[in-house]
Amino acid sequence: MKGRVYLVGAGPGDPELLTLRAARVLREADTVVHDRLIHPAVLEHARPHARIIYVGKEGGGDSVSQEEIHVILIAQALLGRRVVRLKGGDAFVFGRGGEEALALEEAGVPYEVVPGITAGTAVPAAAAIPVTHRGISGAVTFATAHRGGTPPDWDFLARAQTLVLYMAGHRLEETAHALMTSGRAASTPAAVVEAGTWEHQRVVEAPLGRIAEQVKQEALGSPSLLIVGEVVSLRSRLPSLVARG
Amino acid sequence: MKGRVYLVGAGPGDPELLTLRAARVLREADTVVHDRLIHPAVLEHARPHARIIYVGKEGGGDSVSQEEIHVILIAQALLGRRVVRLKGGDAFVFGRGGEEALALEEAGVPYEVVPGITAGTAVPAAAAIPVTHRGISGAVTFATAHRGGTPPDWDFLARAQTLVLYMAGHRLEETAHALMTSGRAASTPAAVVEAGTWEHQRVVEAPLGRIAEQVKQEALGSPSLLIVGEVVSLRSRLPSLVARG
Repeated sequence: MKGRVYLVGAGPGDPELLTLRAARVLREADTVVHDRLIHPAVLEHARPHARIIYVGKEGGGDSVSQEEIHVILIAQALLGRRVVRLKGGDAFVFGRGGEEALALEEAGVPYEVVPGITAGTAVPAAAAIPVTHRGISGAVTFATAHRGGTPPDWDFLARAQTLVLYMAGHRLEETAHALMTSGRAASTPAAVVEAGTWEHQRVVEAPLGRIAEQVKQEALGSPSLLIVGEVVSLRSRLPSLVARG
Repeated sequence: MKGRVYLVGAGPGDPELLTLRAARVLREADTVVHDRLIHPAVLEHARPHARIIYVGKEGGGDSVSQEEIHVILIAQALLGRRVVRLKGGDAFVFGRGGEEALALEEAGVPYEVVPGITAGTAVPAAAAIPVTHRGISGAVTFATAHRGGTPPDWDFLARAQTLVLYMAGHRLEETAHALMTSGRAASTPAAVVEAGTWEHQRVVEAPLGRIAEQVKQEALGSPSLLIVGEVVSLRSRLPSLVARG
């Protein structure tokens, strides 16, 4: 019997933002291999006897390397198991799902991709910020400030009508500085959302020139998302959503 | 009794890509107000006696105006009903959800937003294209070629590492031309996906310089999404996903 791997996006945090398909493949899974930012209620869709393997990185601690994750997925599938590889957000949006798909492809292991809601759309929404809005923004760019290899193209990112930066926490001051150096006005509305869509979500809003200081003052932690652009100002006109956030 | 409106994203098409929350609010709805690109199986979550109001635009025909939609939502809520405003994708990503939220806010009608999976992430995935990939693309930009008001900033869009263009069908030739005139190489890998994640999904892949001709030759229709960038070339290395698409 040959197993199968499902690369599943669990969405931004809120367990009700799981898709019906993700819930189904979790119910059918023999093995669940998951990252750090998965809500405990999501794992409850798995059967009581499913094997749960945690491969996430604790703050600052050691993590399971990407190559080790590939080995685990392939080994579990070769044992004939239905394996759910569960990731925060969507596997193909800053989720390294492409690398895992390539590894499974090379190993000849059958696999599927189950899309999830990426934080870049749901987290701004949870903070009462539409990432696009007629007459205000007709384009949105997702990028990450925290990434191995080549540095972000700040000249490009500074010109984004709406910019959503994943994993913004670590280098927020550098990021804001880089955007302003590349021409983005210090007065541009900006917001940082900690733990978006989770029960303990927090939002800080300030102009780009003061956002890092404000976030520091209110001691926001990770995971966090930075949103830059005129759309952030819509927040003040949507008080009902702010109240729910 | 005061009603409530739920601005719900139904996801890209595949009815299993609905979220658990969307399915729940549909089950509880008295009225469902929906657009054209909603899979019939999604509407089946609603109760048999729920009132279903269709406000979509048929190809070329008349459509219900945005203002009329606001009036319908407000009137239904004022009758004390639980109203689901169901949209393809996500309400806040080219979905005019912000406008509806503002209208409800002004009318004093309670409302919530239920995020959905936007086509920009799920449709490329269904075509075996990760929109980001380590070493290939660290940013993705979503825009639309078909939008009232100000024209797209082609200079900016031409520089996007990965560009995903919604509603690309109508003006594909103009769009490809505009991107190349703004400096994007004609050899850049590109793909157009018709009806992504639906049963009748079709994909055409060709370099940017030839994509419009190829799409015309294969007579792809709407809705369609254009993806431009090196990530498109990953498709050839993920044959298992291509086979499923």
